[in-house]
Amino acid sequence: MKSLKDYMPFILQPQNIARIEGDVILIGDRRAYPLSQEFVSCASVEEVAVAIETMVTQGGGPVRAAMIAMLFLAGQADRGEVKKTPETFIEAKKRLQITRPTNTTMARVLERLVEIILNNLQKGNELAIEVNKFIEDFQKEYESYSFAMAETGAGLIEDGDGVLTMCFAETSFILAIALALEQGKNIKVFSPETRPYLQGARLTAPCLMEVGADVTLITDSMCAFVMSQGKIQKYMTAVDIVTSDGWAANKIGTFQNAVCASYHGIPYFPFAIDPDMTRKGRDGIIIEERNPEEVKMIKGIPTTRPDMKAYYPAFDIVPPHLIAGIITPKGLVSPYALKDVFK
Amino acid sequence: MKSLKDYMPFILQPQNIARIEGDVILIGDRRAYPLSQEFVSCASVEEVAVAIETMVTQGGGPVRAAMIAMLFLAGQADRGEVKKTPETFIEAKKRLQITRPTNTTMARVLERLVEIILNNLQKGNELAIEVNKFIEDFQKEYESYSFAMAETGAGLIEDGDGVLTMCFAETSFILAIALALEQGKNIKVFSPETRPYLQGARLTAPCLMEVGADVTLITDSMCAFVMSQGKIQKYMTAVDIVTSDGWAANKIGTFQNAVCASYHGIPYFPFAIDPDMTRKGRDGIIIEERNPEEVKMIKGIPTTRPDMKAYYPAFDIVPPHLIAGIITPKGLVSPYALKDVFK
Repeated sequence: MKSLKDYMPFILQPQNIARIEGDVILIGDRRAYPLSQEFVSCASVEEVAVAIETMVTQGGGPVRAAMIAMLFLAGQADRGEVKKTPETFIEAKKRLQITRPTNTTMARVLERLVEIILNNLQKGNELAIEVNKFIEDFQKEYESYSFAMAETGAGLIEDGDGVLTMCFAETSFILAIALALEQGKNIKVFSPETRPYLQGARLTAPCLMEVGADVTLITDSMCAFVMSQGKIQKYMTAVDIVTSDGWAANKIGTFQNAVCASYHGIPYFPFAIDPDMTRKGRDGIIIEERNPEEVKMIKGIPTTRPDMKAYYPAFDIVPPHLIAGIITPKGLVSPYALKDVFK
Repeated sequence: MKSLKDYMPFILQPQNIARIEGDVILIGDRRAYPLSQEFVSCASVEEVAVAIETMVTQGGGPVRAAMIAMLFLAGQADRGEVKKTPETFIEAKKRLQITRPTNTTMARVLERLVEIILNNLQKGNELAIEVNKFIEDFQKEYESYSFAMAETGAGLIEDGDGVLTMCFAETSFILAIALALEQGKNIKVFSPETRPYLQGARLTAPCLMEVGADVTLITDSMCAFVMSQGKIQKYMTAVDIVTSDGWAANKIGTFQNAVCASYHGIPYFPFAIDPDMTRKGRDGIIIEERNPEEVKMIKGIPTTRPDMKAYYPAFDIVPPHLIAGIITPKGLVSPYALKDVFK
């Protein structure tokens, strides 16, 4: 049986997301991709936090980067290089958690991981072994969840379909496309570029090419027109958070595509590995605002007057009535049925 | 009484759109603005056509550039530097017309102008004098139409409104904002950057700053989210063409904003100086497709793999049911009433 590794493009191979090498943590630099394959080297939890904040990694990347940072810290504690105290890990957890206010997956994984660390600290165990075990279990679960979601996603895609995505729906969506292609389905994927960070142009479209998909890059302003031409039958994205009552936040632009999909009678299916059952409704979602200077430039090149005012909400929110079904590890779930399925 | 000149930002002053200087035609380079104020120098109709095709000027610019090219050619014909025959002008007209398949305003103005030229050619008159008179009359009419539309537009904007635009709605819209400000209205304008050519970032937002408006630059993917936050009360754009039955085409992205405006209960008001009563419905509009390579780069910097497939329709089409009213020189007209008002 094939594993994730056999399908995943370079940038989504676990070791290329984040790994420890000697005295440092290497994080795959998603800002440089696909024009080059680079890694950012971090020598501390603080440096990993800054790397996450500066978009070295994004999407599902921060979860692994944060776990690897904890493994790194556990090793340092075991060797006596940092204080082997609860505070060391609680502080590291807090620092990492605030890097991503909208997507709460990493924050929740760190809660579980630090609980395990504190338990083992009390028992006087070697911490790195326990953290490593957690990461391996997490990865195994992640792989099985990804296949479950990808199979549901591939099943929703019909032969001849055009599929629109937004931002970087990474593992589950890329795998869904790969599986649909394996099933012999003729599909076309449209990838908006995703300004201002261009995740669509830099990550999604190249990764889809790597798995052999017929992918077309468009600007974020072309989605509705492409729908009106009859080129899109399914709209599929990742989400950064789904609340218990089916509100979903994802990269800015996802919402307006959902509105336009609804107008054109196209179903919207987000992939959510882990709905956040502790949050409810629009107000349960914190929208991260990034530096507005990023709206005024592209890859460092200014696009307007330097004294221009700009606004950069990094995510938007899709209400449940625009969601045809959420693709979860437990199958396709109505946004109104999450409470029953994820208790 | 104030004239257009008193309101218009640098790039919209007629002499900065296109003028003859000595042996050449100077066209204001809208690609370089606002970071610098440059002109492209053209020594023939062919060079003007290429300048229009390569986006040196756009929006309302090509109409004036084409008329100035005809004036230049008329002068050459009068002086015997080119053949003073109908073919000279008919060929020039055809060459200029094919530069802009979607916006038919320039094509229609050239029809009228070349008819006048051919009449005067038959009578043996000096051509440049006649062409110059046509341009002056056109400019006078344009100014009076612009004020009429801007007054209607300003009247629709209420104190405290947020106004979304798309691409470069230039004279009429900029003037509408200037007049609304003069009326003491507190308004905020949101300008999407308008990928891939960034007319919003480079032209609209800086021009609005020049006339003293409170303008915020956003990416094209943020429009619906900004609407959902209650920050937008009116959506106003130019249009490149309105058909006799109220279908409107404008820069790609205009349609998806219209869909999202409708979803949020926000009225959409396009400015149309000159509906094209010879065209009908969606099929009466030709959508210009530009070089897809432009989708894969920003200001010449590549954003993805060089072998990526891309698609670049330059305009999209808004159906009449999404238009609350068209701002014309004859006032605010229902898209379904154009046939009665423009006979």
